[in-house]
Amino acid sequence: MNDRDRRPPFRRGGGKPFEKGRKPSGRPAWRDRESNPDGPVILYGWHTVAAALANPERRIRKLFLTENAARRLADENIATPVPPEIVRPQAIDARLGPDAVHQGLLAEADPLPSPDIDTLDQEGIVLVLDQITDPHNVGAILRSAAAFAVKAIVTTARHSPEATGVLAKSASGALELVPMVTVQNLARALTELNDRGFMTVGLDSEGSEDLGAVVLQQPLALVLGAEGKGLRQLTRETCSVVARLDMPGEIKSLNVSNAAVLALYIGASRLGLMK
Amino acid sequence: MNDRDRRPPFRRGGGKPFEKGRKPSGRPAWRDRESNPDGPVILYGWHTVAAALANPERRIRKLFLTENAARRLADENIATPVPPEIVRPQAIDARLGPDAVHQGLLAEADPLPSPDIDTLDQEGIVLVLDQITDPHNVGAILRSAAAFAVKAIVTTARHSPEATGVLAKSASGALELVPMVTVQNLARALTELNDRGFMTVGLDSEGSEDLGAVVLQQPLALVLGAEGKGLRQLTRETCSVVARLDMPGEIKSLNVSNAAVLALYIGASRLGLMK
Repeated sequence: MNDRDRRPPFRRGGGKPFEKGRKPSGRPAWRDRESNPDGPVILYGWHTVAAALANPERRIRKLFLTENAARRLADENIATPVPPEIVRPQAIDARLGPDAVHQGLLAEADPLPSPDIDTLDQEGIVLVLDQITDPHNVGAILRSAAAFAVKAIVTTARHSPEATGVLAKSASGALELVPMVTVQNLARALTELNDRGFMTVGLDSEGSEDLGAVVLQQPLALVLGAEGKGLRQLTRETCSVVARLDMPGEIKSLNVSNAAVLALYIGASRLGLMK
Repeated sequence: MNDRDRRPPFRRGGGKPFEKGRKPSGRPAWRDRESNPDGPVILYGWHTVAAALANPERRIRKLFLTENAARRLADENIATPVPPEIVRPQAIDARLGPDAVHQGLLAEADPLPSPDIDTLDQEGIVLVLDQITDPHNVGAILRSAAAFAVKAIVTTARHSPEATGVLAKSASGALELVPMVTVQNLARALTELNDRGFMTVGLDSEGSEDLGAVVLQQPLALVLGAEGKGLRQLTRETCSVVARLDMPGEIKSLNVSNAAVLALYIGASRLGLMK
């Protein structure tokens, strides 16, 4: 990871925030879409922005780069669809807040289109997220989904984080690789998946059998609930099977992104999708 | 999850911060130990505090509870080793900052003792963390470690987050269950593990073989590096084997806590430790 252009030790005080054409705001920019769904998607960090630049479906509106980041893109022959604005690292710090590891890259982009459930191929694995709200967790789940060649992630329009900012950063480029299907009603979406021949398996510590013991079939939808709350009642009732993850230790529940990657590994292994 | 006593809709304005016997500070209290290693360990949230109260090794110095949290502890017959101070939820908010989901419980405690490498039993699995700095990730790893009955976690004294605050909350009680072995020099610790008969397996995307193809043995030490940087050179050289996690998708690396849980599942399954 190249973060040599973060907080350079000798340049201080420069780096005005770049507010050209934007309303000034006291909040980090990645919150823009949460408060204003028509605002731009904010993408930052090397993997996240490089993946967006490589995605022909992603419309980049503005690109802010430090000199080092611009040189690195050039070195790796990554073309930019819009002329980048060269800024100091502090200017990006000022946009994102001090904790964001942006590595000198920030893009403003349009959201990607959300496909419909009935366009999903009847093969492989999809993940369904039932009101998982933490953007770090959803980002990590996206990244694991891309690692396991998941066909799509289905989320609810409400009670899900926007596909921008922290989520995009945690996904480490996976936002460009895994289609996000946003639905109004999750139980209806699960019914559509059932009708299209998907085996819908809910994960829940109260599940009737261990996931490892369930005979899995393609196409498979793995359904994960929020930490603490778990799957909602109607979600649970609409799944073909509700399974638990048996583990030998004293704690019986995992962080939701850890549960997701384990379910993906078990699913992909059993279905012969690991090659 | 019971968070009914968070931000009650009708009580406002009350809840002075409780600074009795403490220096006032503009920083969230869970940072105290990071700036001052002799400061108290801060534990908050239902699972984290309930597990600490159940741990006879954990010395609780002060306990702050909302009325609801005190009632819930009483309902579940959980005794408190010190008389709790009943406070308003806003007082805990003021200590921890607005984003901490404390559920009405906050404890100040002493750190747990760190066992020595040479006291570890020569069986089962231990996890070794090579400078993983994010407290959410280390907390999630601890939680997964407790779920997979890991015997201990070995970390470096430097470049590791303190076992307090966000780490303790993310661990969801696991801090009380999995011994943390803090060492000055990780390569020396790995050499000691090798000498004690541990098979030391480093995880790295550049590893020479897939973890699933490695013939694993007990006692097993799984070694994880920081995201981006991976295992340090000397760490890698001191491991018996360096293995990768093969996955079928376009992204070849996982969030470090996701990689940890997958390695634990594969390790525990192959070693017959899943029962």
